[in-house]
Amino acid sequence: MIIEKIDKSRFTPEIFNIQSFGTAFADHMLVCSYKDGKWGEPIIKPYGKLEFTPAMSVAHYGQGIFEGMKAYKGSEGDVFLFRPEKNFERMNKSAVRLDMPEIPEEIFMEGLKALVDLDRQWVPDIYGMSLYLRPVMFATEEAITARSANEYLFVILTAVAPNYYNKPLSVKVADRYSRAANGGVGYAKAAGNYAGSFYPTHIAREEGYDQVIWTDDATHTLIEEAGTMNVMVRIGDKLLTAPTSERILNGVTRDSMIELAKSSGIDIEVRKITVEEVYNAHKSGELKEVFGVGTAVVVNNYVAVGYGDERLELPDLPLEESYGKSLKKKLVDLQMGISEDPFGWRIKVEEKLVEA
Amino acid sequence: MIIEKIDKSRFTPEIFNIQSFGTAFADHMLVCSYKDGKWGEPIIKPYGKLEFTPAMSVAHYGQGIFEGMKAYKGSEGDVFLFRPEKNFERMNKSAVRLDMPEIPEEIFMEGLKALVDLDRQWVPDIYGMSLYLRPVMFATEEAITARSANEYLFVILTAVAPNYYNKPLSVKVADRYSRAANGGVGYAKAAGNYAGSFYPTHIAREEGYDQVIWTDDATHTLIEEAGTMNVMVRIGDKLLTAPTSERILNGVTRDSMIELAKSSGIDIEVRKITVEEVYNAHKSGELKEVFGVGTAVVVNNYVAVGYGDERLELPDLPLEESYGKSLKKKLVDLQMGISEDPFGWRIKVEEKLVEA
Repeated sequence: MIIEKIDKSRFTPEIFNIQSFGTAFADHMLVCSYKDGKWGEPIIKPYGKLEFTPAMSVAHYGQGIFEGMKAYKGSEGDVFLFRPEKNFERMNKSAVRLDMPEIPEEIFMEGLKALVDLDRQWVPDIYGMSLYLRPVMFATEEAITARSANEYLFVILTAVAPNYYNKPLSVKVADRYSRAANGGVGYAKAAGNYAGSFYPTHIAREEGYDQVIWTDDATHTLIEEAGTMNVMVRIGDKLLTAPTSERILNGVTRDSMIELAKSSGIDIEVRKITVEEVYNAHKSGELKEVFGVGTAVVVNNYVAVGYGDERLELPDLPLEESYGKSLKKKLVDLQMGISEDPFGWRIKVEEKLVEA
Repeated sequence: MIIEKIDKSRFTPEIFNIQSFGTAFADHMLVCSYKDGKWGEPIIKPYGKLEFTPAMSVAHYGQGIFEGMKAYKGSEGDVFLFRPEKNFERMNKSAVRLDMPEIPEEIFMEGLKALVDLDRQWVPDIYGMSLYLRPVMFATEEAITARSANEYLFVILTAVAPNYYNKPLSVKVADRYSRAANGGVGYAKAAGNYAGSFYPTHIAREEGYDQVIWTDDATHTLIEEAGTMNVMVRIGDKLLTAPTSERILNGVTRDSMIELAKSSGIDIEVRKITVEEVYNAHKSGELKEVFGVGTAVVVNNYVAVGYGDERLELPDLPLEESYGKSLKKKLVDLQMGISEDPFGWRIKVEEKLVEA
């Protein structure tokens, strides 16, 4: 690994006041090129622009995949990653589906730790805040022909993360547009999945909602994801979430929430959820909570679910009565080193891993 | 429009011997930026690299759309575009579905003509060859947050086009993977559609085929597209092609082939085609031709169609007996100015449209 340190850090404590997500980049980034069938040496260098041809294939054919992770700072100043091996595994599953080369574990994991160590002052020591970590790989080959590229760039970017959504969201159940096909790329963190979701979200926003609850593309009767998150539904005192599938992303936060729910004695069931049962549960007063779970947002308890022309309002439960809010607190406490970690999810970033 | 001419042209006549598609870029490109809710002034400048941040949103969220077109040179040295207004219209349909800004007609059409005029020596005067034109738009905003970008770049690239496929192809009918969802982006020329198709194509190649015939994602019983092309099937003396839909691209070559078939007295029907009827037609000896149609390849008559473990071989009909080959010749003759153009499809690129 080559380390090219920035001459003078751009860090100021005011950066922790930022309100927008994904725009306050830390001093350094990691870049690593793939060419001639092999990965080159990773380089940590100052964050900034690079030269690319507008013929680079990701802009034309969409071979782009990414991961979303966070680094947290505990009260002792220790910096933690959260289950990074899950992101590494999923990144390579995405790579296979998009016909891209897999990243070696060493480049991903050691690169990530070295980068976070070097920019550890950028990790906020503020409850609920973090340094967002964005491994991304995209096709850079100079060729406008519709085939898998032969050249790629793997990059890790980091940016200070405020609370992603500073207000509770309302969501519209998709009855026209879809996110994923059977036999498609829905389970991958593929760039194209996001591009395809923006217009339906735009339409939902015009109808007074913030995001879309995605349903199966064939019948729109099954609840699958919400916005860019997995979705959980509480009917009575039972918590439900859909099984992952080739259409549904295997979210790290989703998996962690399932484990936390189980260890908290919450009755959680992983099974298909129909739009109809959610609608009926609202009518009977049994629909207590619907929330999205994902790395960026952690947990967002929705205030309303739109179904056709109806807006199903949800109660605003206090923390101690809400599964979503109480599990969110447990998860963030664990991530920040406030609570015990019986699962072994927290990985401390050692200092001075790299000699600069 | 700003024109920055190259100091010394890179053109040599040997470039017309190129065998690979989409890599021999002409001297100039057009670039135009979208920012703060509006398009800037288009600039024609020497083709080359530009500076981009690796946080540019297309690499993460896939907002990228493109068009494929060709410029042809006739025997008198005239340079022609082919139905460019169809590509302009489709580009903006793609833009709407990907929640991207629409391109003004003037920037697209006048930019295209000025660029082709300036680089007209790069248009081969060789039968069947052309200068491939690639309008592309992608998100450039420096923000890793999952929403539509606020900044885009529209670029027109041009590259010398040899024959795209120098051999007849064989295709495998998809029975596991899919290209498009109901309510998805299949009808758009969206970057992510291509990325999602590469792995299934990779698998088909391992089974001895070149490309995939895409079927509907729910049942895999309907024939929809082939590789990156529309598909036509000839059973007996009837030519069939699937109606366009939200899952199927509205190809300009497809549309032109339908018109040419009609004017040639060929019995063509636009209707759903089942995998079963194609299979049964092969068994009864009635399956005469299956071919892909698209701008890059024009027409490619397949030599075999794979269905499950069976390889259905197709006859190699001579030009005068083949719908695919004879319609291809009619189309290329029209595009190159060899034959009459009763449809008004050919647009001559006037010389000296731009003062350099």
